[in-house]
Amino acid sequence: MQTPLILRQVNPLEEADILIRECTLLPMDDRGIIKEGLIAIEDETITYAGKEAKAPRMKAEKVIDGRGKVAMPGLVNCHTHLAMTLFRGIAEDQPLQKWLKQTIWPLEAKLKPRDVYDGALLGCLEMIKSGTTSFADMYFNEDQVAKAVEKAGLRGVLAQGILEAGFLSRGEKMLRESVNFAKKYDGYADGRVTAQLGPHTLYTCGPSLLRKVREKATELKVGVHIHLAESEETVNLTKKKHGLSEVELLEKMGFLGPDVLAAHCIHLAKEEMRIMAKHNVKVSYNPVVNMKLAQGTARIKDLSDLGVTVGIGTDGPASNNNLDMFESMKIAALLQKQFYKDPTVMPAKMVLKMATIDGARALGLEKTVGTLEAGKKADIILLDFKKPHLTPIHDPYANIIYSAHGSDVDTVIVDGKVLMENRKVKTLDEEEVMLKAQKTATDILTRKTR
Amino acid sequence: MQTPLILRQVNPLEEADILIRECTLLPMDDRGIIKEGLIAIEDETITYAGKEAKAPRMKAEKVIDGRGKVAMPGLVNCHTHLAMTLFRGIAEDQPLQKWLKQTIWPLEAKLKPRDVYDGALLGCLEMIKSGTTSFADMYFNEDQVAKAVEKAGLRGVLAQGILEAGFLSRGEKMLRESVNFAKKYDGYADGRVTAQLGPHTLYTCGPSLLRKVREKATELKVGVHIHLAESEETVNLTKKKHGLSEVELLEKMGFLGPDVLAAHCIHLAKEEMRIMAKHNVKVSYNPVVNMKLAQGTARIKDLSDLGVTVGIGTDGPASNNNLDMFESMKIAALLQKQFYKDPTVMPAKMVLKMATIDGARALGLEKTVGTLEAGKKADIILLDFKKPHLTPIHDPYANIIYSAHGSDVDTVIVDGKVLMENRKVKTLDEEEVMLKAQKTATDILTRKTR
Repeated sequence: MQTPLILRQVNPLEEADILIRECTLLPMDDRGIIKEGLIAIEDETITYAGKEAKAPRMKAEKVIDGRGKVAMPGLVNCHTHLAMTLFRGIAEDQPLQKWLKQTIWPLEAKLKPRDVYDGALLGCLEMIKSGTTSFADMYFNEDQVAKAVEKAGLRGVLAQGILEAGFLSRGEKMLRESVNFAKKYDGYADGRVTAQLGPHTLYTCGPSLLRKVREKATELKVGVHIHLAESEETVNLTKKKHGLSEVELLEKMGFLGPDVLAAHCIHLAKEEMRIMAKHNVKVSYNPVVNMKLAQGTARIKDLSDLGVTVGIGTDGPASNNNLDMFESMKIAALLQKQFYKDPTVMPAKMVLKMATIDGARALGLEKTVGTLEAGKKADIILLDFKKPHLTPIHDPYANIIYSAHGSDVDTVIVDGKVLMENRKVKTLDEEEVMLKAQKTATDILTRKTR
Repeated sequence: MQTPLILRQVNPLEEADILIRECTLLPMDDRGIIKEGLIAIEDETITYAGKEAKAPRMKAEKVIDGRGKVAMPGLVNCHTHLAMTLFRGIAEDQPLQKWLKQTIWPLEAKLKPRDVYDGALLGCLEMIKSGTTSFADMYFNEDQVAKAVEKAGLRGVLAQGILEAGFLSRGEKMLRESVNFAKKYDGYADGRVTAQLGPHTLYTCGPSLLRKVREKATELKVGVHIHLAESEETVNLTKKKHGLSEVELLEKMGFLGPDVLAAHCIHLAKEEMRIMAKHNVKVSYNPVVNMKLAQGTARIKDLSDLGVTVGIGTDGPASNNNLDMFESMKIAALLQKQFYKDPTVMPAKMVLKMATIDGARALGLEKTVGTLEAGKKADIILLDFKKPHLTPIHDPYANIIYSAHGSDVDTVIVDGKVLMENRKVKTLDEEEVMLKAQKTATDILTRKTR
């Protein structure tokens, strides 16, 4: 795209590593849609994102032709268990407790660290191919997930899970492991990995343990990722046991704060929502899995109206069953419209904000990513809009939320590095990652419990 | 794949036009998953679909390598308005009546026949690229849709819409047009087009007109495609005006029968469901649009339990906003699970039956398509399962319903003719169809009302 004419200009050219030219730009900041946009990237940082006509003349070794493409911030998946790709489709259409107890937990008991790596790497590959650039994960052997993230080139907010489940010493041990993970991996992979602590839920971690988690998180300056109010049954158990709702109990123990990422948040009374807003707790809304497991509907409109920051998550691939944030965005909107009986609820642009800048905010990454503006890290995706289902283009936001899928993502850049171009992933051998994961998944099924 | 060794066999080889070899076969009849499957096609007909090892030795000029692929019947979209691709994304997140009155109807008033062709052709392209091989459509200028279907190579069950809307003479005129369309186009395009009559709804077509529609349909031996019980408001209007529910009113006028395809069917009392079952009325369940327009949830489990045949539809692309049946299948399952608060409702295989053989039944095509078995027309799609989000393969049905999207369709065959191979469409110039539709859509916006 760089013409000799420009190279012959008298003014010195600004240098960039990558230029994306003539794209339609959705910066997802206060600006709207920018046509004939230009993005300049130097090292891992965006140095320009705006109208090409208003930009200084620039040159770069790598110029990406953005014609027919829409550039936007990479998507942020606020809740998943990546390694569970290995169990995708293994026990379908079952009640949550049966699914967990008869299939998932026995299989997880057989997992080796290397399996988690194989599963996480497959998950990373799937995320790259569907335009997710940042994600929040909670699982066992989270160091393996960190290594997969490093290899794949993605950005991960990772938590080693903590499950007490009635055994205090087990809880203590898992807290230590979660803390050790956080100490070792916060800032890992050139800063692309940040750590959180990962207490599983209020019904699997007792108040004493949760208080310690809070102390440690504050001390280490890391966030906390927890499941909250997912199932009516466990919400009622907590109420019966403690005489308080989950959110009231967490508030009472001083657990809540802006660094808490709460996944699901379905069964909340209005007062609990107000408490969450007061403490600036972040929410991951996971519509696909909530519907699939029939757990109920999170009242995202109410939470939003109260000022709570809401991101969108896919949850683990064993219960969704994919990591496609485009699909989750559409269903996120559909479910709210259906629940509130109001088609105006959660319009397309609001959904896209949730999946980009609000998601980044939920993960504590809002100063780093989530919008396309100079100074932020270059986490960018290009969508190929020359597709039948994206034609005509009356409203790019509507096309993205209601018509697109992950397979429309053409190019993925994270931290200034091109991870995928023309749908070819550069950091991973796609065939090899899939073969290994298939082999590992099959192997686990026949393996004896450790 | 055909080896010289086989060619040297003494037994004479059976001839076929196309062989699909070594695929995983989901025939969607009483058989389950067939590994190492073979499909043989001669002219427009399947001559073999089963285990390759049990097949006679065959040769063919065209051999498709099915390794890593899943072969299944092409998907059946039971309800759409194809030409509305032109209005995709044009007025989003609005209430149904506002959307219709302020945007859609004024735009439709400006439509020329040729626009309908352009929009329908784009819709055909999108359906081919996402694995839909048969569909039911209702619109104005339906002859243009028939011509698009002929060109694209798809199978269409088409109805010219009838809207009285208080003007009796208009209703009569539109009925005549609908009848003329049916007479002219039933059996069109080598039999790939069948016709229906298309009375819009009970609230836009009066009882007298609907009785005439019924008579004409019976006389012409064609089906009837109608919207039923979509909006609570109009259901209540009917009840107030006639003292009967929509289904009761239709039964009273002798309208109901196995040739009636009723779209939506949301606001039905249990007694109405029983009446529908009694008359073997067919239902198109359109989950995406019902959620998006916040119209309510069709109780598909109840209808199914009563023995009603239910297919799945996308509805028009202006309100969905795509024609991707894979997405609609997933949301079909999710919505029922959520509505009934039961994750076991509508399991994956049942959904796939709805979108194939049950859909074919709903369209009166069950003897022609909907399963892969010898004697049926060769309407076949191949899914490329070598994808990260379709790995590992524990359960092909689950992968198809919960993980796949239309873009995973690799090959589409209709009536024995290859419409798409390796995602390259053979019957249409993709670029040209998209450009034309974009141009037409833009042009309509600036055009004066006729």
